[in-house]
Amino acid sequence: MGAGILSGLRIVEISAFIAAPLGGATLAAMGADVIRVDPPGGGVDIGRWPLHRGRSLYWAGLNQGKRSVTIDMRHELGQEKVARLITAPGDGGGIFLTNLPVSGWNSYDELKKLRRDLVMVVVTGNRDGSAAVDYTVNAALGFPFITGPEDAVGPLNHVLPAWDAMTGFLAATAILAAERHRRITGDGQLVELSLSDVGLAVAGHLGLIGEAVLEEQPRGRFGNHVYGTFGRDFVTRDGRRVMVLALTPRQWRSLVEATGLSGEFRNLEARLGLYFNNEGDRWRGRQEISDRLQEWIALRNLSSVAAAFDAERVLWGPYQTFKELVAEDPRASAANPLFADVEHPGLGTYPTPGSPLRFGAADPVPPRPAPRLGEHTDEVLREFDL
Amino acid sequence: MGAGILSGLRIVEISAFIAAPLGGATLAAMGADVIRVDPPGGGVDIGRWPLHRGRSLYWAGLNQGKRSVTIDMRHELGQEKVARLITAPGDGGGIFLTNLPVSGWNSYDELKKLRRDLVMVVVTGNRDGSAAVDYTVNAALGFPFITGPEDAVGPLNHVLPAWDAMTGFLAATAILAAERHRRITGDGQLVELSLSDVGLAVAGHLGLIGEAVLEEQPRGRFGNHVYGTFGRDFVTRDGRRVMVLALTPRQWRSLVEATGLSGEFRNLEARLGLYFNNEGDRWRGRQEISDRLQEWIALRNLSSVAAAFDAERVLWGPYQTFKELVAEDPRASAANPLFADVEHPGLGTYPTPGSPLRFGAADPVPPRPAPRLGEHTDEVLREFDL
Repeated sequence: MGAGILSGLRIVEISAFIAAPLGGATLAAMGADVIRVDPPGGGVDIGRWPLHRGRSLYWAGLNQGKRSVTIDMRHELGQEKVARLITAPGDGGGIFLTNLPVSGWNSYDELKKLRRDLVMVVVTGNRDGSAAVDYTVNAALGFPFITGPEDAVGPLNHVLPAWDAMTGFLAATAILAAERHRRITGDGQLVELSLSDVGLAVAGHLGLIGEAVLEEQPRGRFGNHVYGTFGRDFVTRDGRRVMVLALTPRQWRSLVEATGLSGEFRNLEARLGLYFNNEGDRWRGRQEISDRLQEWIALRNLSSVAAAFDAERVLWGPYQTFKELVAEDPRASAANPLFADVEHPGLGTYPTPGSPLRFGAADPVPPRPAPRLGEHTDEVLREFDL
Repeated sequence: MGAGILSGLRIVEISAFIAAPLGGATLAAMGADVIRVDPPGGGVDIGRWPLHRGRSLYWAGLNQGKRSVTIDMRHELGQEKVARLITAPGDGGGIFLTNLPVSGWNSYDELKKLRRDLVMVVVTGNRDGSAAVDYTVNAALGFPFITGPEDAVGPLNHVLPAWDAMTGFLAATAILAAERHRRITGDGQLVELSLSDVGLAVAGHLGLIGEAVLEEQPRGRFGNHVYGTFGRDFVTRDGRRVMVLALTPRQWRSLVEATGLSGEFRNLEARLGLYFNNEGDRWRGRQEISDRLQEWIALRNLSSVAAAFDAERVLWGPYQTFKELVAEDPRASAANPLFADVEHPGLGTYPTPGSPLRFGAADPVPPRPAPRLGEHTDEVLREFDL
């Protein structure tokens, strides 16, 4: 399939929704040949929102750069074809990624009979195979009770399907680790991961499980304040919002310099008995710091805030709606080499990302649209003599 | 360093905060020897919250299973030692991961002189090297304006540093892809990725950039409703919260069966002119569906809701605070093989995750604590003759 650091790898994907499809799209954007197999008419995610003119922008995004094959897998003939496709010979082949239930014909044990060095990565909801999705994992993890305004009641879901996306990227990691092992030893293997384990591992790495065990009163809900240091949103004179942070002493000095509020902040430190070079003290004084800073920012338009902050290397950024993002931010346009303006059949033309990974030793893979459902069925059946 | 699918790989990490450290911890949990180098006294993240008894649970979580070396890199002697450590010989060595500024002695061009096949992965804020962190990337991407209650005003940050975590996992993917390339061709390379590109790519894959370009009115803020289908939080009689979803027709039937509300929902469909087997129609009728369902759930305690839902395979899950998670959920305890009760020196003992990836062909790496800062300085200096 041409350019890309993973040129020569071939992955067969049977999947739905986000985690496995994003894992496959990530590898496709690095040059792997990713063949997604769906039932005729498409899987359960074929019409997933957001839509445009009734067609799924979600499906188009999560299947970029793949080949699409439709085969009826309810019957033995179709199952046999897909099993032979998954286990077709070739150095970079014999890799199967799925987040749909596997049993019988598409189990590791059955497929291994057709290709002994098969690498198979199975994404489940829970480790025991029971159902869980991004939303139930997030509910269980505690984040909805610490997200949102301090006076909010009840859980507040974030909209970003973060656990799905992380699981997708980890599935890509898993495939490369198992393929490395195969390259060294000749052996394939089954790799399993679950959405809830990914969420739990991340909560653990962030210290939140330790905090909940060791602290009588773990962290609460603090609105847009960044826990344990200084960071928050502010409103400019022209009604725009900005996120302003001082995570390090250098960034705090920048903020003080840019605003010229050193006298005010020194008085505040004296009055509160705090020393704002310490992150904990910036946290303890966050409300007072924010009050001063909001006064300063409220007197200025976004453009003057930006100029003052950038001159002193303040860590900050404007809030943008998705509309503002695509209208105003060059990072979300073809001015950023991450993107190209790609025409998606039946949808339209819009900036479409390639891989965010830039490999010095390999040509990048130009961003490509998703296939039409079943677009490559004949081609793939012929190519693999099925 | 023993067990693990990546046993034999060695990564030197110069890092702070989340993205690169999580990338390193991910590889360490898979058996790689990850050596994190910090200045004496620690880097800017050594005291990052959450804390316990003044010590960072965050640092302990993000550096699990690594070796820690402290060297003063402000002076030439220290720089030379670290450069030699990064470029030390060995098949699995010569891999450098960083999210701190590189220039001069630790630039790719300089280090490559010491080891021609160096793999170096550099995480930046923006692609052009300018500063951006999870919070500013999130602000720019549009999510804070679609997160939170429908009547919320202004942006609402989610608390989970999702972009950081995704970037960490992608950095792990990048290292394995570049190491594969080196194994095949003998060539090393520089790999770059930026937090903002990762965020933009994910927003693109989810269809949100396409939606913002093509739709006059892209999706708004819908509280805890799951966009374009049915999913929301509900309150049980005993005051617990549950997340309930019907993403597929099968899941919708399960919900109808479990609640015995088929008559009510049929009437509702007739009255509204909707057909709830279609996800779009479940979305259009979400308020009315939720009203019926809330009545049903409000009459039952969590335990009876759970029994009724599980019997019919409804897609649902309880909300839990972090305290409830560690107290009640076996998935967040050593009953889940993901975790072991690990003693973290100076902090205490708590369930500590290993890799969420389970490789059939390799022994798992038992969860390990983070090192004490500088714990392996002498050992590493000796081992690499520095």
